[in-house]
Amino acid sequence: MNFVQVLNKKKQGLELTTEEINYFATEYAKGTIPDYQASALLMAICIKGLNEREILDLTQAYVSTGDKYMLENVKGYKVDKHSTGGVGDKTSLVYGPICASYGLKVCKMSGRGLAQTGGTIDKLETFPGMTTELSDKAFQDVINKTNMSIIQQTSNIVLADKKIYALRDVTGTVDSIGLITASIMSKKLVLNNDGLVIDCKVGKGAFMKDLKEAKELSNYMIKIGKMAGRDIAIMLTNMNTPLGKAIGNAIEVKEAYDTLLGNGPDDLNELCATAAAISLVQGGIFKDFKTAEKDVLTKLKNGDFVKPFKEFVEAQGGDFSVIENYDKNFTTKNKIEIKADKDGFIEYIDANEMGLLAMELGAGRKTKEDTLDLAAGIYLEKQTGDAVKKGDVLFTLYSNKVIDYKSEISDKLFTINKTKPNSKIILDILQ
Amino acid sequence: MNFVQVLNKKKQGLELTTEEINYFATEYAKGTIPDYQASALLMAICIKGLNEREILDLTQAYVSTGDKYMLENVKGYKVDKHSTGGVGDKTSLVYGPICASYGLKVCKMSGRGLAQTGGTIDKLETFPGMTTELSDKAFQDVINKTNMSIIQQTSNIVLADKKIYALRDVTGTVDSIGLITASIMSKKLVLNNDGLVIDCKVGKGAFMKDLKEAKELSNYMIKIGKMAGRDIAIMLTNMNTPLGKAIGNAIEVKEAYDTLLGNGPDDLNELCATAAAISLVQGGIFKDFKTAEKDVLTKLKNGDFVKPFKEFVEAQGGDFSVIENYDKNFTTKNKIEIKADKDGFIEYIDANEMGLLAMELGAGRKTKEDTLDLAAGIYLEKQTGDAVKKGDVLFTLYSNKVIDYKSEISDKLFTINKTKPNSKIILDILQ
Repeated sequence: MNFVQVLNKKKQGLELTTEEINYFATEYAKGTIPDYQASALLMAICIKGLNEREILDLTQAYVSTGDKYMLENVKGYKVDKHSTGGVGDKTSLVYGPICASYGLKVCKMSGRGLAQTGGTIDKLETFPGMTTELSDKAFQDVINKTNMSIIQQTSNIVLADKKIYALRDVTGTVDSIGLITASIMSKKLVLNNDGLVIDCKVGKGAFMKDLKEAKELSNYMIKIGKMAGRDIAIMLTNMNTPLGKAIGNAIEVKEAYDTLLGNGPDDLNELCATAAAISLVQGGIFKDFKTAEKDVLTKLKNGDFVKPFKEFVEAQGGDFSVIENYDKNFTTKNKIEIKADKDGFIEYIDANEMGLLAMELGAGRKTKEDTLDLAAGIYLEKQTGDAVKKGDVLFTLYSNKVIDYKSEISDKLFTINKTKPNSKIILDILQ
Repeated sequence: MNFVQVLNKKKQGLELTTEEINYFATEYAKGTIPDYQASALLMAICIKGLNEREILDLTQAYVSTGDKYMLENVKGYKVDKHSTGGVGDKTSLVYGPICASYGLKVCKMSGRGLAQTGGTIDKLETFPGMTTELSDKAFQDVINKTNMSIIQQTSNIVLADKKIYALRDVTGTVDSIGLITASIMSKKLVLNNDGLVIDCKVGKGAFMKDLKEAKELSNYMIKIGKMAGRDIAIMLTNMNTPLGKAIGNAIEVKEAYDTLLGNGPDDLNELCATAAAISLVQGGIFKDFKTAEKDVLTKLKNGDFVKPFKEFVEAQGGDFSVIENYDKNFTTKNKIEIKADKDGFIEYIDANEMGLLAMELGAGRKTKEDTLDLAAGIYLEKQTGDAVKKGDVLFTLYSNKVIDYKSEISDKLFTINKTKPNSKIILDILQ
């Protein structure tokens, strides 16, 4: 194939063929197409766009450049929930056991955290002995045994996307809805699931800052998901403020555990029940969303879902007892309580700043090579909308490092105001 | 400077600043900007375009990345004529002596030929001892002595353009009017001349195949030339068919010499007189074009301009006598006459095919490394529009190689038809 002709076609705004898109992704992954040709195509794509067929082709071409998980030995309706990344997001650890409990097969691949954003794999390492590096067979065996498994993303999936993602970053070609859609969706399509719920975070602590843009991207993701044969729904959820009260690793696992015991914060309960209810309807367990959601919330409050969580952790070698005896196992050398300096309502807690602060405490990585302090983190005694009195503890910082908290930082982290703000967690559901 | 921001600006169709354009050209020439960023910008430029200010900045930035010739010791009005490249184009060797004869200073830098297109420097090497590698000082000394000098393009001019030109070729970013204009004009602006005539060849033997496109490009070149302080005019001339009757090196020098003696073919006389008359009006020697052209044509027919040609060649060390005794000095081992197979008019001689044939005979280079046979070439006994009878010699091939001429090739080279075609050399003059 003459790749310069492909460049000329996209430059003129013409549609590329499936063959041309495959050639680009696979040959660039192999290194046969040089960076300078790839970046020229990416720029042309940014300006001229990709239609839905081209985005689907690019997504599938990305998937084809790495390992795929066909899940051929898993019987039943296979589901997956993905978040686009946020602060305090322990949803998978609650959603998974709920769905598993109803008999859905939760087949999930997760990543590690970077910068202000946490990662499910890091959180799961709270359990001593837990392994998330499973062979394809072991992965399916755990699912068949406990209805749920979470493994870590290997370095050998969507190789073309990884290389193109890095190139986009240095060539001003990040903001293409087609390229973003293909990048996100290819990672989801690596697993051959039946149903897919994407939790698209919107707000200051998320990649998507703006609801309108997030909806546009979501509509593309839905189209591509459907074209690829998935039952797909997208929740647009609030990430201006952290999700739940815990930010860190063990502390978030504890919150997930408490939530499964029936003692979760409202926003987390609502988010997890919504995600699970969507999957339960997709999988035919319930006929409609409202009934599903009601049933889930009732059982969640009863603590009915904690058992599958324990079974899943133990099936992957984890010692579940550490979280049952949290206070004994996850103490930190240092602890600081931040108090309110006036009466009022919490108007706003900045998810991004909180994530960065948790990282400084040792709960997150500045670079991929950093090691984590599993016990470090932040507990929000008050959430957005809560009434506070001067002197109330707002949040507690935990770290094994010396905590260097300057009061000026408070202005960035939160505001207290006289009127109670409106704050909702689910902004929209698209499907 | 954050170059990714520059990429993002052009991607959005925004105007780049002078500083941003300078940064791109100079840093890419140095190698600080990688190919993959440069190609992304070139693609954005191809799609979003450059305005006139940006083209001027890019042109001047190209010039700044290599040697410049300020001609500070040359007194008088300095002129230059450039051709965009054609077949049989010996115009400079006639134009130069005409202008020099009227007291203009002809300061010219030329290149070598490649593929079907000849180069003035190759042609000048017909004269034994002729050097076209002159220092800046020697160049100006020759001009001050004989009113004319032609030197060869050094490898150290417009370095950014050279590197970008190569990158455009492999990234589908050739067809940008802004990039083409900057590339052509930068090479012209390396010499600090006052007046500039560009002979933009149009037709099958030229880079520009189409008159409309050639006019569009010319209008940009004129604007950039004027913005850079030049008196500039562009002649659009016919390159469907070769210029004059001779194609080769020594054989073209001979035709130029004959033309200066008053015995040139009509098309070459007209083209050279037009170019010279434009320069003479630019330089204030004549008030209007018609008077200038008439004066030039009269003197050309009288052979008044041959003396400055000889003086220029001898000032650069060339032995002019070889061309005065052409038949003794430039014989070839082999010679073939191609004859008409029917009566009629020469409807068309294909400039491109003739150039390629001359190359095969040894008059041109397939690759930069090939050596030339100065005596090889083609003489057109008949030109486009001439009446011929069956058996008339149409053209003669000269070569020191065995000439492998197959009669089938004739169909590509020329056609004979019953009616006399219209053919004119000057298609338009823009200024």
